[in-house]
Amino acid sequence: MISYTCAEYLRPRTSSPRGTYLCDMHAKNLPSVGILGGGQLGRMLLQAAANYPVITHVLENDEHCPSAHLCHQFTKGNITNFDDVYNFGKGLDCLTIEIENVNVDALEKLETEGVRIFPRPSVLKTIKNKIRQKEYYRDNEIPSAAFHVTNSKADLQNFLSFLPAVHKSAEGGYDGKGVQIIRSEKETDLGFNEPAVLERLITINKEISQIVAINEKGDTALYPPVEMVFDPHLNLLDYQICPAEMETKVLWKIEAIALSVVRNFKSPGIFAVELLIDRDGSVFVNETAPRVHNSGHHTIEAHYCSQFDMLWRIMLDFPLGNTAAILPSIMVNVIGAEGSDGDVYYEGLPDVLKIENAFVHLYGKTKTKPGRKMGHVTVVSRDKHDLLHKSNKIKHLLFPKSSAH
Amino acid sequence: MISYTCAEYLRPRTSSPRGTYLCDMHAKNLPSVGILGGGQLGRMLLQAAANYPVITHVLENDEHCPSAHLCHQFTKGNITNFDDVYNFGKGLDCLTIEIENVNVDALEKLETEGVRIFPRPSVLKTIKNKIRQKEYYRDNEIPSAAFHVTNSKADLQNFLSFLPAVHKSAEGGYDGKGVQIIRSEKETDLGFNEPAVLERLITINKEISQIVAINEKGDTALYPPVEMVFDPHLNLLDYQICPAEMETKVLWKIEAIALSVVRNFKSPGIFAVELLIDRDGSVFVNETAPRVHNSGHHTIEAHYCSQFDMLWRIMLDFPLGNTAAILPSIMVNVIGAEGSDGDVYYEGLPDVLKIENAFVHLYGKTKTKPGRKMGHVTVVSRDKHDLLHKSNKIKHLLFPKSSAH
Repeated sequence: MISYTCAEYLRPRTSSPRGTYLCDMHAKNLPSVGILGGGQLGRMLLQAAANYPVITHVLENDEHCPSAHLCHQFTKGNITNFDDVYNFGKGLDCLTIEIENVNVDALEKLETEGVRIFPRPSVLKTIKNKIRQKEYYRDNEIPSAAFHVTNSKADLQNFLSFLPAVHKSAEGGYDGKGVQIIRSEKETDLGFNEPAVLERLITINKEISQIVAINEKGDTALYPPVEMVFDPHLNLLDYQICPAEMETKVLWKIEAIALSVVRNFKSPGIFAVELLIDRDGSVFVNETAPRVHNSGHHTIEAHYCSQFDMLWRIMLDFPLGNTAAILPSIMVNVIGAEGSDGDVYYEGLPDVLKIENAFVHLYGKTKTKPGRKMGHVTVVSRDKHDLLHKSNKIKHLLFPKSSAH
Repeated sequence: MISYTCAEYLRPRTSSPRGTYLCDMHAKNLPSVGILGGGQLGRMLLQAAANYPVITHVLENDEHCPSAHLCHQFTKGNITNFDDVYNFGKGLDCLTIEIENVNVDALEKLETEGVRIFPRPSVLKTIKNKIRQKEYYRDNEIPSAAFHVTNSKADLQNFLSFLPAVHKSAEGGYDGKGVQIIRSEKETDLGFNEPAVLERLITINKEISQIVAINEKGDTALYPPVEMVFDPHLNLLDYQICPAEMETKVLWKIEAIALSVVRNFKSPGIFAVELLIDRDGSVFVNETAPRVHNSGHHTIEAHYCSQFDMLWRIMLDFPLGNTAAILPSIMVNVIGAEGSDGDVYYEGLPDVLKIENAFVHLYGKTKTKPGRKMGHVTVVSRDKHDLLHKSNKIKHLLFPKSSAH
């Protein structure tokens, strides 16, 4: 009996004759697709990949990451480093991302060399920089909050009459960081002393995510929009319900705007367009993620074709799937509990698994810390009250805690 | 950038300090579960495992097998060899199988050493031998076709008045092999010259599979029975439809009989009980598989809790899931085409993926050969005619062929 690690056989990255042999064997038949980033989005992509004829690769600096053991070939490397991304991508048929913060120059070079990239590097360039992203919406006549560009904190003095507004750092933002509300002249010191956008504050009635799939031919498929409900105290995504309740004419507006966002990118892929609806029913694009997204996790169980399955269909040149909901659903993120930092265990997990039609996804992260996304739970039910009741129960039952506590 | 293979970090099978470190890190928190066999059943188990906090291991002789790249640790070895199975299993928390033909002696030793085994080795002993299996049904008063034990071909002469009957080799049978119909004295020469059972021929009206889940506490959950429809010309499983159409009283009989089969085994696990219904509505157990089963693949999309998810719930001591159907479904196996032998490609795959609500699962086998199970497709729909129409379309569209052709 010889003990092997699972992916030793694939891809000619190792110099072993068996590695080369097997890589050749696979390469003859199967496309090879790489994912930049090895977090939960990669993990769920890889679960879906196992239904299709494809060889999977992951580039990620953290070898304990959620995706490492589910791909054919894991490569340790920095997704923001040119050489790491370029060397990982060359020779692959396709590349996709699970985070925007990747080395776009390397992707551009790979694109010129024939690697198909989802989304195209030009899209990443636009989206990674909040100034470019806002200019994109403006140039393409896509409704989005009015804005000014500021290059330093001092610039804010030119826009005092524009306050209250939201200051967003052009490059620094991620997961709520790099965003600051500035209500009046007194608060201008909270602003960013670097390139940023100053956006008009919208009185939000609802926050919506509209996921759109688009293939190389330009065929599109829209998932039903979901409503993201935030905890007013913690400003954390509390739950997300699908379908979002809204008037038909608002739905049509959302769909039209999201399609316009996506089509103008001229890139195949999955896009999550986040929109704000104000008290008057006006719709504004907040921002766009050019990838599978937290707001689409419910599609795994609640929709015929999940966002993850859909991205494989797009990358492998298969027809788009059916975005319709099988059942209404609610999704709750499982977030690292306050005061817990270390090796994780899941308090309340058996109780949550007792809840009928609750689908638990834990991401295999070995360490928890406060606020870290450790998993999610989707509940499906025909009855909205049942959904709300169960999601509330889950939020009070399931906590990732550290073993030390 | 350093290139690693994906599972290098887990379990102290390798002597590298990082391997040991990481294994320890995981072992602190997570149960480790091994699967004997690395085929499609293991693959689908591993897709489901990624939702749970568990470290996964696979033992299999073929390093190109469908499961190798989806587990944390792949071990090359022979599942019928005592040492290979014993060395693989020791130190793991749980073991399960994806084929009955494993070394049961090693499993018995591991069981005495505290490894939890699903199903228990005693069940495998009973089921692996057709004589013992038939005696089990008889001893537990479970309806099954009347039978005699024969030790040689000559023995058949003692049971001429029992003909026509089915001769089944006690140990040799798998996937239709080791089974021979003997209609009259003239055909006795076709029989097996080794221990076998001679079973009364039942005039089959329907073939049913009833999947039952049972946990350590003895809680049970029954999936709706499925009807397996065979091609009359090829004697191959043609499609399988869920739920099976039958009178309620026949359903109750099936459920009662299947529960009796499973409870008397006194073992947790997933069991697929195959039953025959004759023209009078009498129900007979044909045979039992003590594991996830081909007749349960539709549960991935068509039921709230799939058979794969269910087995993880059982092994990880979580509550049983909901076996109810979300929608009626049909399942078609994707079988290697006649005359094709070699590196596989899938003729008609994009056309099948165009069919609404058809879920394609290809198992990642690199080589096709005639009759080999290469994948399956499940279709869900409220409308039975729609299911039949689509499954018929799939059977005429999708063929695994060899690249050479």
